[in-house]
This record gives sequence, C-alpha cells and structure tokens, in this order.
Amino acid sequence: MSRYANIRPDMARLWSTLERSAQIGTTPRGGLRRLALSEDDGVMRRQFQAWCEAAGCTMEIDPIGNMVARRPGRDPDAKAVLVGSHLDTQIKGGRFDGILGVLAGLEIVRTLNDHGIETRRPIAVVNWTNEEGARFEPPMIGSAVFTGEKSTQFAWERTDKDGITLGAALEAIGFAGSDILRPEAFDSLFELHIEQGPRLDEQKIQLGIVTGAFAVRGFVVEVTGETGHVGPTPMPKRRNALVGAAHVTLAVEEIGWLMHETGGKSTTMRLKAEPNLLGILPDHVEMTCDMRHPSDEVIRTMMQLFLDRVPELEEKSRCRITVRESWSYGGMTFDPGCTALTRAAAQQLGYTHTDLLTEAGHDAMHVANYLPTAMIFTPCEDGLSHNELENVTLADIEPGVNVLLQAVLARAG
Amino acid sequence: MSRYANIRPDMARLWSTLERSAQIGTTPRGGLRRLALSEDDGVMRRQFQAWCEAAGCTMEIDPIGNMVARRPGRDPDAKAVLVGSHLDTQIKGGRFDGILGVLAGLEIVRTLNDHGIETRRPIAVVNWTNEEGARFEPPMIGSAVFTGEKSTQFAWERTDKDGITLGAALEAIGFAGSDILRPEAFDSLFELHIEQGPRLDEQKIQLGIVTGAFAVRGFVVEVTGETGHVGPTPMPKRRNALVGAAHVTLAVEEIGWLMHETGGKSTTMRLKAEPNLLGILPDHVEMTCDMRHPSDEVIRTMMQLFLDRVPELEEKSRCRITVRESWSYGGMTFDPGCTALTRAAAQQLGYTHTDLLTEAGHDAMHVANYLPTAMIFTPCEDGLSHNELENVTLADIEPGVNVLLQAVLARAG
Repeated sequence: MSRYANIRPDMARLWSTLERSAQIGTTPRGGLRRLALSEDDGVMRRQFQAWCEAAGCTMEIDPIGNMVARRPGRDPDAKAVLVGSHLDTQIKGGRFDGILGVLAGLEIVRTLNDHGIETRRPIAVVNWTNEEGARFEPPMIGSAVFTGEKSTQFAWERTDKDGITLGAALEAIGFAGSDILRPEAFDSLFELHIEQGPRLDEQKIQLGIVTGAFAVRGFVVEVTGETGHVGPTPMPKRRNALVGAAHVTLAVEEIGWLMHETGGKSTTMRLKAEPNLLGILPDHVEMTCDMRHPSDEVIRTMMQLFLDRVPELEEKSRCRITVRESWSYGGMTFDPGCTALTRAAAQQLGYTHTDLLTEAGHDAMHVANYLPTAMIFTPCEDGLSHNELENVTLADIEPGVNVLLQAVLARAG
Repeated sequence: MSRYANIRPDMARLWSTLERSAQIGTTPRGGLRRLALSEDDGVMRRQFQAWCEAAGCTMEIDPIGNMVARRPGRDPDAKAVLVGSHLDTQIKGGRFDGILGVLAGLEIVRTLNDHGIETRRPIAVVNWTNEEGARFEPPMIGSAVFTGEKSTQFAWERTDKDGITLGAALEAIGFAGSDILRPEAFDSLFELHIEQGPRLDEQKIQLGIVTGAFAVRGFVVEVTGETGHVGPTPMPKRRNALVGAAHVTLAVEEIGWLMHETGGKSTTMRLKAEPNLLGILPDHVEMTCDMRHPSDEVIRTMMQLFLDRVPELEEKSRCRITVRESWSYGGMTFDPGCTALTRAAAQQLGYTHTDLLTEAGHDAMHVANYLPTAMIFTPCEDGLSHNELENVTLADIEPGVNVLLQAVLARAG
C-alpha cells in the first residue's frame, strides 16, 4: 500500500463494460455462449482491443491469439505486470467467469489514466485464448502455448466438433497474431476471478486469497461390450456398454463422496455411446471423468481406488473397461510474494478475506510455474458457475477489484 | 403340400443374390451399413428391381417406397400372396437380417418360373421401406403406412440426424412411387427371417414356426439435473444428470434379470447427455429404453416395477426423472391358418422345428392386424444380429426357404 492507497476504480464504468460483454453471445436465459474463436469471440476481442487502444495501450497478439494490451511504465527495462483472465465462455456459460478478470485489468488501466499515475513497470492486460476448452480441447491452451508447455502447431491442429481447426478459426476472426509473447518478457501475473464455488458466498466473506490449486486428474474410460438385438438377445448373453458405463459412473461418484469432507470431488462429465440407436445393444461407450482434491497424494489414492474397482465393474457388466489418464494439473502453490501483496491490500482496505485453494483450472496455474503469480477470488451467487444463471453483484466484486488494483500497483511500483 | 412337393429352390442362386447384396454397403468387418433410402439402399433397390423384372414381375412402388414385384396368377380376380421382408440394415448390421426374406421371395418366383408353375393367386415379393429405423424413426414405417396406421405425410416428415426428411431421401434415390398399396388388395403375408436370437442355433433346431410376437414397450426417460463447475461444486450440491442416468440404467437392467427366466428382457439402448462437455456437470440426459416379454400382462408389471422405483432413483441422484411411453407393439398371435401351412410344410419335409414367438419387431407384426400373416425363422449363428458378424450358412437357411416355398405355393394354390 502506497501513496495511491486511496485510489479507487470506477465500478460503474467497469460494470458497463461487463454489461456490454454480456450482449455479445447472449443466451435466452441471460448467460453467454461465446465459444473460443467464434464470431462472437471475435466481436468481443475487437471491442476489448478498441477499449484498450482508447486507453492508450498498445495491443500485442501472438500466434495462438493471446491478447496483451500494454500500458507503458517509467522504466524502459522493467518487465510488465500481467493482469487478466479470459473472454471466452462455456456453451451455456455465465457473464463473469473469466470476463471479470480481463475487464478489471482494463479498469485498472483506465483508473491509472484518470489519476495520471505512472508506474515503474508496464501493466499488461491479458486475454488468454480458449481457457474454457468448450470448443477446442484441451482447455487453457493459450496460456499453455505462452509458457511453451504446448507448441503453437499442436494448438493450431486442435479441431472442434465440426472438424474446424483452431488455426483456421483464429484466422477466420483475424486473431492469428505474429507477436511473440513468452514468460521471460513479463514480471508476474495477477488474475481476479469469481470463485465458482459456494464458500465465500455462504460464509459472507468478501475475498478469497488463493494460495494454491487443487490437484486435478482427468481420465477417459472406454467401455467395450458387444452389439446385438435388444429383442431376442437373452439377458445372460448381453454385454451392454451402457450398463458398464452406469457401473463406472456410480463407482466414480462414490469415490468423490468418500473424500468429500476433505474437499474431494469426482465427476463423470461426458459420455458418448455407440451405436446409440434403437433396437441395438450399445457396444462402446467413451466417458470422461474428473477427480479433484487439495492433496496430490489423496488424488493418487482416489485414482487408485477407482482402478482397483475396475475388475469388479467388468464382471458386473461383462464389458471390458480401460482407463487412460488424460490430464493432470494443479497441486501447486502460488507465489508467496505476490499472494502477500493481495492479502496485505485486503487487510489495509478492511475487507474480510480467507485463504483458499482454487478448485477450478485457471490460466494462472499454467503461468505460476514460470512467473510469480497470484489469484484473487470474489464471491459468486450460490457458487453457481458454468451455468447461464451464474451471477454476482457490483458489491460482490468491488472488494476484489480494489485489491487487484492495489496489489498490481504495489508490484508495478 | 401338393403335386409340387418335390420342387426345390436353387439355393446356390439364392446364395449368389445374398452375396451380391453383401457387396452393397459393405463394412470393414464384412457386415452391412445400408441405411434406409441411402445411396446404397438405392443401388440395392435398383438391383432388386432388375432381378424381379428379369424374372417377369411387374414392379409397383408406393409413395413411402415400399416395393412390390408381382408375378401374375391364373385367376385375374385373386388377391396376391405377399412374400418378403426388408433390404435396409442397421448402421453396423448384418448381411441376412431382412435381406434373406426378400431374396427368398425372389428365389421362389425364379423357381416357379424354372418349373413353369402357374399359381392361382399372384405372388408378390415385397421390400418394406425403413424396417430398421436406424436412419428414420420409428422403425417399420413402410408397413405402418401400408396398413394405414401411419400417414404418408407423417412418414415423409421424419428426419434423420442431419435433418434430411424421409421424403427428400426417397426422392433423392428415385423411389417415391405413385402406386397405391393397401392391405385390401392382398391375400396374406409370409415373412422368412433369421431368428436374431440363439435358441434355434443352440438347440440345433432347423426351423422356428413363429406363432406370435413378444409384447414390447419402448420408453424415453428424461433426467434433469443442474449444470455447475465440476471443480468447486461440492458433492452434496450436485445434481449430475449422468448419475441419475446411471441409476436408471441399472434399475432397468435389474428388471430384465428379474423376468429373464420367463423370457423377459430390458435394455437401455440409447443415451444422450447435455451439455456433455469437459468441466461441466451435465444437466440433462435423454435415454431410450425397451422392455420385452412374451406376456402383455408381465410387460405391464415390468413397466410398473420401473415406475415404482423412480422416486428412489430421484432421491439417490437428486435429479428429476420423467418417463414417457414411446411405443408399444407386439403381443399378438399370427394367423393360425397361414401358420399351420408353414408347420405342415416343415413336417412333410422332415425338418426339426419348434413353435416360438418373435422377440424382435418385424413388418409382419404390423401387417398381421390386417392380413393373414405367418413368419418362419431360420437359425442364426450364436443368435448374433444387429451386428456386422451376424452369420448363417446355406445349410442353415435351406429348410426355411423350402418351407416358405411350399407354404406360399399352398396358399397361392
């Protein structure tokens, strides 16, 4: 906290940008469907670019479409402080998930402009490409290319359900840039996000200081049975892959309940059956499942509990069940220095706050392995997210935006 | 049995037509994918038409694409005996399901031609449109339009998964005819079919005399939960529709096992989850289920057993579960007179045979409510059907074809 401790963002102005964003890809129930690199994402990106340029920033766009709007600092050699999140949404997503973090970054730039404040380090507002992974998998691909964990070529070759490549989609909306964005050119990252869980809202806590991330395992389960006619095939001769999938689903669910008092969760989130037709026993199901826990050790136990049950599930369903791990992330601690800045700002401003771990995936989790990184959570109504009814009030987010401003100011100097 | 009791079909010639059919829409594993009104179905239909016309038949095609090839009889006023089945297949179907019945009808015409036999009644070889229902639902729509149970307009408006209407598909392959085909113009129907179940094959019985049909209930179950983020949403706050669907699947399965010793079966055959994406709890599942039993009374009990369990399944999954009955057929007895002709032919020819009920749906079940109808089953290997590996040998089908010939001759006079 500094001589700028009394500076406040213009919350009404921030809210108006959130409202404008909520008009781009609006769903009938008032949420957003703004899939990564869709036409609507292009419209939103151009709007964001126009706002940033009007605020005196220069825009850099890399080949994966990550956008970084840079507000210069005093020191020409100082690396920039990144502030941001993502502007894409789920298919039936909300108006705040990700968007709040990007537009709060823009509001910080505007606020500094209002007060004629020059920081030592540049401040760079970032919009990461395809955080949600709702159109192209894996999720968080923009930040993974930024850190070098994934190659641009790998990212460009991802396809959506219609077979359109991510590269073609980027070019179609004009956001395949040529700027080079790499962690070594930046100082740190601050990401503000809605909690996407109920804890802050239920306990009426104004802020979450995110000290680290849950460990996450994603895995694909394939169930193989045998087709046959649903009429004459006797029960003992059947190998219905949907029956195998039902046993898998309930086994996965049970493990989440077993660990839920220490924060564990498990989910079957996607299931595709084949041939999935009337009159035929399905012979193949592919399911995607997910387990999360604060402890990496416990997550390994949860996975093992599931793998140990596979033979029993195979026997019950007479299907073959194979499991392959698909992704694994989280389980890390955010930078204590950056996190301390956010905690200090919350204390100085007199906001109630609590340390917590993020249970969702965020671009900050990729970046945290390369740059000092901090995350701040604001409450969201009933913890509902990835849902059209996701909601926050201006009062809910004001503490988070203020803390973000002060922490970024402190880091940027 | 008559003076023609020693007449035999040319099984090698019949087999060669089955082989030719097996080349139209062949799958990598040697089955067939010849969806109703697809290009391949058009190729097969034109081949069938060419064969029939070369055999001296006149072809009539009605507005739903049912094909009837008529071999004239002696009596200009006598109604024709229908013999046939269907030429369409499942997505991963076999080479004999339906096809055998149509091409055996053709072989009967050819055999009668070889021997210069004139029957009193015309003999009409029929190919019903869209028996399988793999592309357009409901299945058996051609025979339903023939009987008047469904209107041509209703049938034309059915759409496939790409939104193509049945009417457009009919026109695209040139099989939207203008002939009027109605039960009142025909005398009877004989349908030869592979059993699609294991009983004849296991017990080494040469023929099944089909005296009636299992009662069948199809129903759609909708499971409604709530979306949310798979990370932060605690287990007790979840309403994962796939968990509801898993409970439904296992409850349906249990009822089939409960009744399986008296021939009962139950199946979840199709399941579609939404949004079915990574990171999101699915909020909606639509499942299609099926129950079958020889007794209509028991099938009502099976449905009731399931409906009685719904509240418990809702409680376990915290989802809303609604059930709507979608179709109901079968449970009828075939014409004793026509059936007696097939049984008598089997006895005279010295074939082992048994009375049984059909457990699958067949066009004959629609027609049986309007015309004297009989069905004959031949064994199929391991009872496997609706599967690319469906198989029969020439020796398996010879008794059925011989009995079909003699029964049709007896009926046609």
